[in-house]
Amino acid sequence: MQLLTRRPTSNLAEKEKDEDFEVDWVLLYDFQDIEVHHATDEYHTLIRDIEAFGLEAEVRHGYGTTLLILIRIPRNKLGNEVYRSRVKDWLFGIVQVRPLGDSSTVIDAATPSEEIRSVFHLVTWTKEQGGVGITANFGQWNRITASFAPHAWTANKKLLKTLSAKIILETDDLDQIKALFGEKVAFYYAFIQAYSLFLIAPASCGTLFWLFSKPYSMAFGVVICVWSITFVEWWKRQELELSIRWNVKGVDALKVNRVQYTWEKEEMDPITGEVKKIFSTRKRLARQLLFLPFAAFAGLALSSVLVVTFLIEAMVSDVYGDALASYWAVKYLPTILLAVSLPYVTDFLTDLASKLSEHENHRTNDEFELAQVQKSFVLNFVTSFLPLILTAYIYVPWGSRLVPYLMPDSWKLVAAKDFRVDAHRLQEEVISLSMAGQVMNCVEEFVVPWVKRHLKEAYRRYKDTRQGSSLHQRMTSEFTKTLLVDAPQEARLLSRLRTEAIASVYDVNEDIMQMTVQFGYLAMFGVVYPLMPLGFLLNNWVELRGDFFKLISESQRPPPIRCDSIGPCISALEFLTWLGSLSTAALLYLYRNGEITNIRLSRLLLTVFIAEQVYLATKLSIRFVFDKIGSEAVRREEATRRLIRKRYLETFSEEAAGTSVRQNAFTYTNPRRSAPGTPTEAEKKGYMPVIAEVEETVDVRSEYKTEKAERFWNARKEIMGTAEAGVRLIVALKGMQKSRIGDGGDKSKWI
Amino acid sequence: MQLLTRRPTSNLAEKEKDEDFEVDWVLLYDFQDIEVHHATDEYHTLIRDIEAFGLEAEVRHGYGTTLLILIRIPRNKLGNEVYRSRVKDWLFGIVQVRPLGDSSTVIDAATPSEEIRSVFHLVTWTKEQGGVGITANFGQWNRITASFAPHAWTANKKLLKTLSAKIILETDDLDQIKALFGEKVAFYYAFIQAYSLFLIAPASCGTLFWLFSKPYSMAFGVVICVWSITFVEWWKRQELELSIRWNVKGVDALKVNRVQYTWEKEEMDPITGEVKKIFSTRKRLARQLLFLPFAAFAGLALSSVLVVTFLIEAMVSDVYGDALASYWAVKYLPTILLAVSLPYVTDFLTDLASKLSEHENHRTNDEFELAQVQKSFVLNFVTSFLPLILTAYIYVPWGSRLVPYLMPDSWKLVAAKDFRVDAHRLQEEVISLSMAGQVMNCVEEFVVPWVKRHLKEAYRRYKDTRQGSSLHQRMTSEFTKTLLVDAPQEARLLSRLRTEAIASVYDVNEDIMQMTVQFGYLAMFGVVYPLMPLGFLLNNWVELRGDFFKLISESQRPPPIRCDSIGPCISALEFLTWLGSLSTAALLYLYRNGEITNIRLSRLLLTVFIAEQVYLATKLSIRFVFDKIGSEAVRREEATRRLIRKRYLETFSEEAAGTSVRQNAFTYTNPRRSAPGTPTEAEKKGYMPVIAEVEETVDVRSEYKTEKAERFWNARKEIMGTAEAGVRLIVALKGMQKSRIGDGGDKSKWI
Repeated sequence: MQLLTRRPTSNLAEKEKDEDFEVDWVLLYDFQDIEVHHATDEYHTLIRDIEAFGLEAEVRHGYGTTLLILIRIPRNKLGNEVYRSRVKDWLFGIVQVRPLGDSSTVIDAATPSEEIRSVFHLVTWTKEQGGVGITANFGQWNRITASFAPHAWTANKKLLKTLSAKIILETDDLDQIKALFGEKVAFYYAFIQAYSLFLIAPASCGTLFWLFSKPYSMAFGVVICVWSITFVEWWKRQELELSIRWNVKGVDALKVNRVQYTWEKEEMDPITGEVKKIFSTRKRLARQLLFLPFAAFAGLALSSVLVVTFLIEAMVSDVYGDALASYWAVKYLPTILLAVSLPYVTDFLTDLASKLSEHENHRTNDEFELAQVQKSFVLNFVTSFLPLILTAYIYVPWGSRLVPYLMPDSWKLVAAKDFRVDAHRLQEEVISLSMAGQVMNCVEEFVVPWVKRHLKEAYRRYKDTRQGSSLHQRMTSEFTKTLLVDAPQEARLLSRLRTEAIASVYDVNEDIMQMTVQFGYLAMFGVVYPLMPLGFLLNNWVELRGDFFKLISESQRPPPIRCDSIGPCISALEFLTWLGSLSTAALLYLYRNGEITNIRLSRLLLTVFIAEQVYLATKLSIRFVFDKIGSEAVRREEATRRLIRKRYLETFSEEAAGTSVRQNAFTYTNPRRSAPGTPTEAEKKGYMPVIAEVEETVDVRSEYKTEKAERFWNARKEIMGTAEAGVRLIVALKGMQKSRIGDGGDKSKWI
Repeated sequence: MQLLTRRPTSNLAEKEKDEDFEVDWVLLYDFQDIEVHHATDEYHTLIRDIEAFGLEAEVRHGYGTTLLILIRIPRNKLGNEVYRSRVKDWLFGIVQVRPLGDSSTVIDAATPSEEIRSVFHLVTWTKEQGGVGITANFGQWNRITASFAPHAWTANKKLLKTLSAKIILETDDLDQIKALFGEKVAFYYAFIQAYSLFLIAPASCGTLFWLFSKPYSMAFGVVICVWSITFVEWWKRQELELSIRWNVKGVDALKVNRVQYTWEKEEMDPITGEVKKIFSTRKRLARQLLFLPFAAFAGLALSSVLVVTFLIEAMVSDVYGDALASYWAVKYLPTILLAVSLPYVTDFLTDLASKLSEHENHRTNDEFELAQVQKSFVLNFVTSFLPLILTAYIYVPWGSRLVPYLMPDSWKLVAAKDFRVDAHRLQEEVISLSMAGQVMNCVEEFVVPWVKRHLKEAYRRYKDTRQGSSLHQRMTSEFTKTLLVDAPQEARLLSRLRTEAIASVYDVNEDIMQMTVQFGYLAMFGVVYPLMPLGFLLNNWVELRGDFFKLISESQRPPPIRCDSIGPCISALEFLTWLGSLSTAALLYLYRNGEITNIRLSRLLLTVFIAEQVYLATKLSIRFVFDKIGSEAVRREEATRRLIRKRYLETFSEEAAGTSVRQNAFTYTNPRRSAPGTPTEAEKKGYMPVIAEVEETVDVRSEYKTEKAERFWNARKEIMGTAEAGVRLIVALKGMQKSRIGDGGDKSKWI
């Protein structure tokens, strides 16, 4: 961020400053809570592990008592890992084209995200999986508090500029996002983009209905329901096409075990001979059953908080509204109460959810995430929708009968006897919760962290200058002093890395969940306020860019994990279309004249029952139509696979017939890298344009070692090894920490 | 059949008699309605087509004015076709192991069904698809009224014996059925077997409930619903496992165009370069929309017939029961009326359905069948379930109020004023429709055709002996006379073939539909009569064996078509579980005290509404559990695929490294045929047992030309060619036809 806004220098100078010195990966080692000798031991082990595995390591000091450990992977090792990863893809049937080479083949990654994924694997995979085995915040490496790849600043800024300038993202832009941040993040952007485009239909309809129709229009209800079902079904197909485009279809199959996974026994696969770590499915299922009491408990806990505040608020505003008009503090008390208590309850429940998911002992990260998202959806559902559900289905229709029972007797004197709940209340609440809620979300998500970060930084800078002089005096060695001062050419990179190291970890699932909740508002309560989709459309335009800004400037670069869909939220979306249909039908019946009149339970049930059947029928028909239309990408994929096999076949046949046209026809490799080959038919026809296009815009660092980087990685080593430098830094920083405490500074945790 | 029961000779003699003379395929050419010269022309064309394609043809006379054209495929041609078919499987990704060979490779089929499938393709595929292009009852070959492979009598009898002796079919038995009749038929047997086994649970529960509980027990209702959902979900997984076992997963992909398919334009596939025949999807979808009016019309037509008879019957028995007790003819009048009129209505609608499906212009036979089955399900649903639905939901609960309105005024005098419908009526009707219906079905399906066929045969024999002498006198040439008399060694085969040629075509979908309807009875009305599952269980034991008996003795051998599921009935089953849950819930509410008391619509709706949600939740949970458990077969398949690719990879790597261990490792072929290869690891572990096991029990005719067959195929050719023999037969038989008509015989259509 800082780099992006301040000092608009010339393009060349900027590039100069954005030198990355070929740092592939960064670890943040925090030794605040342990003794010096313990810290040096641990540090030695870490460096030994890294260097024993053939990676290069450098060390710099971080903020406070932390060290930045910078890792560079030798190009040969990285290239080989990229090749191995491609072979694995082919073995698991994710790509159809066998990568050419043998066990020592080295190839360049096609995109930065492919490269970083291999780096990520090399650093974090366990030794038996083929990595160094460093997992942040877990087990042996508990004090490694951050583990990330540095952001590609130049590319990020360029992409942000592109996104800001464009109204609609095209597939190329998604490809670029994918090239920088991996498929998982790209899928989110594909989703929000597709969803926003789809929103245009209900937004324009909604505006028309708002202008020319009565509220609670049946026609608009139908539009909303059919639209939501169509969108979800369409997206499922779109997802499939994207997964084919990005070569990640079925990528779940090759996910490795989580480090946290514990197993009961090891078994040799009788076919492939691989050793599998088995945990009883039945046991896991039994553990997963705990989800039900969790959901019940979480629902109850959250609802009781919400219901109590809701009732107080409703009574205060509706019943005693006039009497208490002057005491505004009383009026806003419930809201404040809620705002204060809800985060505690939610945090507690989220913690509980994590523990539960951990207890379920999932084998892969994907499964773990699925379990997490399910639980998170329950929490989100209750907090987001319960207030509206209460208002729509209980308070407004039956409030006039219920409220008198709930009031304390003493209050009854104040309350008017002819208490009646206004039907407009629902509309107001929908507007405030869905529309204003979106704005609040934006502020919370983008503005607050930005301000917070800047304040922190300013405070740190102030502190540093205040302590700087006294600290430097206490240093023992002149050389250690130079270790503590950044070399001018590195200063910019290191300052960025220090900021990134303490930045928050980006969780794309949160963003997806946010969109899911928004979709839920529309599907369930869209009929109440026809301008809602328009509001969402505008919000999402900002949201998409804001999210990207947040990603590149407020978060650590997420490891470019692959996946072939937006993940478990798809089920949540389907659930919401179902609930939306029921809800829309019920609202249309209850509020059919714009107010509550003459409700008959049997009619209400009949309406909802019919709505459900219509929903099921509509969904099946839409699926049927989509199935009939089919997917061009899927057809193309199948044809390609067939073509490849046909070529193999032809080659072998020719061979059997005595000719020896070999190797050329049955080895398919990336066109860019197959030096002597002529383009295959498929390539000519352009079915493989993705990689080629991306390469034009996002550079992969394929050339080996620049001079500057060489200096960065080797200059200091001539004086002392990374191990020794780190130890000196630990001692020095620990000394600083102690002196700070000695100075009476109680803010030892200011990082 | 005949052969099976009569004359129990010694095993050796029997084998002798069951000589098949290597007849691969039989066509029945019926020239009754055309002139001799026209018939000879057509016959010439046919023989020319067959022989030009390199197949051998022989001719024998059939019953009446028909010719049996016997076709033999030269082993080389057949072996090559089998090879090509396997290559195609591999190209389309149905099997993972590339068959070794080149364009002229000849291999033996693994099972008779594989062999016959290739024969079927060679005979029926169009010339551009690589066959002779003979489609029975269509276009140019309108007068070819049958086209089939001869039954394998010895194997059939052996299998029937096995099935009759066994209580439960094992997978081996299914493999045997598959080896003889192909996957589609085998899937039906797998289904009925699995379904019957599953029936044991509700059958035993049901018996207990019948003994110890009141009728309309809620607990039994839950058992039925959960059971039905579990069964359908389990079967879907079972299907997948079987499709992997039989190597047919995804076989839909390679189905060729139907002959009836018309296309709008041809397009070259840009990737594979294959020419595709395109018919606009939108147009087809529009045509498929006609399904809705058809369903409405068919439903209306059938319901009106049913409702009218139902009302008459109900009134006659319930209202005027006592008054008309002596006039039994009146009492049974409605049933007779229904029995007479329903077949006409159904036939008309079935015809309409076929025309509609034809009009929809489906590309493949599978799609066409899907469309047919959908329509047939609607018809079956109305005829099977409507009477019960009427009784359960309208007549019994509301009958006392409705009937007085519907009665003609004059009748009201007779009817008692305090008319009340007995709640037991539903139970009686359920028993009669579901239980007695099953027995009736059996009789209709097995006994009636058997009796009919035998009567016909007896009549024909009587006729033949009566006319024999006079005909023989009129014959012009002594040689033609010998043509008309079967050689003693061929007599048995020819008599069998003549019977098979006029036997009915076996449609496995009808059998599957029958089971689906049975499942529907159980899911929807099982709660009414807890002994129902027990009855079905017993019925199915007979049904399975009866169906097999029908298949081998009353039907033509169906072409061994491949598929990877029981087909579209899966959706029908799912629909029935859904409807069953609603129906069970409604019945439990309506008849909660064993009779109709105090019905409130809102409660009924609430019950059904809740039932639907519970249904959806149960289904999702069961799916979730099955997903978590996963399928061993699927895992094995994936591991195998990986292993194969790994081997390829290792080979190529070694090659690249300079060694030359080739061909051995990356060419995988059927173990039986790979002469010098050592068994692969996977084969050792037994993941490929299917083919091997089958081979032990069902013989494929792989040796080339027995002496007897040689005589059969060549003896007559020495005197005259097949073409000439056929012409002589046509003339002679035509003469016989004329003479029969001249004799005053008006039964010219007695075949």
